Amino acid sequence: MTAERAAPDPSKGSHPTPRECVLAFCAAWSGPDLDEVIRWLGYDIVYHNMPMAPLHGIAATEAYLRTAGPFERSHWEVLNIAADGEIVLTERIDRMTVRGREIVLPVMGTFRVRDGLIREWRDYFDLAAYRAQYPQDA
Amino acid sequence: MTAERAAPDPSKGSHPTPRECVLAFCAAWSGPDLDEVIRWLGYDIVYHNMPMAPLHGIAATEAYLRTAGPFERSHWEVLNIAADGEIVLTERIDRMTVRGREIVLPVMGTFRVRDGLIREWRDYFDLAAYRAQYPQDA
Repeated sequence: MTAERAAPDPSKGSHPTPRECVLAFCAAWSGPDLDEVIRWLGYDIVYHNMPMAPLHGIAATEAYLRTAGPFERSHWEVLNIAADGEIVLTERIDRMTVRGREIVLPVMGTFRVRDGLIREWRDYFDLAAYRAQYPQDA
Repeated sequence: MTAERAAPDPSKGSHPTPRECVLAFCAAWSGPDLDEVIRWLGYDIVYHNMPMAPLHGIAATEAYLRTAGPFERSHWEVLNIAADGEIVLTERIDRMTVRGREIVLPVMGTFRVRDGLIREWRDYFDLAAYRAQYPQDA
């Protein structure tokens, strides 16, 4: 994947701010454009949906994201965002469509961004609220 | 309650910043010092534990907080905090002791602070993670 990435290159010396990176990452979930989602993640990403086990590294994270749902459509609405250095905190409403049914999930997420790539991503939400909306029929 | 409050008085014209207010509020949970916790909340507070129904106003919020748990001890560890104007976003580990058993809960919370008082408070967490740790015996 690395060679294909169009993400900011640390060797170029100039990156969008951590806040800008996270906003672009959230915007990439509209669609979703999973290639664009994944290009914002560092190879050493630690991705943790807090109610579940954390995933370590880009391979595990990409494998999860490409099969999660799977989401026919998705859109993240960023309600609030604030940054402090490398850390960006978000409050969002994530919308995901699975087998024609829209799941609406209130989420807060923490991101650590270094050299223009997300290195840590932790999402906080109520897992039961997600599962209650997930379509049970095939 | 209003007359008893030692919280910052808008008429005095000078308040701690929203970030400072939220840090003081989080610190008041050490103990907990519920009088101090409550004095940081505005009369018009909307308090929403996202997995549950929102509470409107200081009376409903105070009644809930004074009976929640009840917590023999508590401590909030602020992992990350970032502010943007009136909005303060936090990532925390909340620890609460109920009947001798410590509950450890990863939480993110959004606060809106105006005139030195918290007007909106939304906590995002996995309700099942809380309930699984809550002591079942009397």
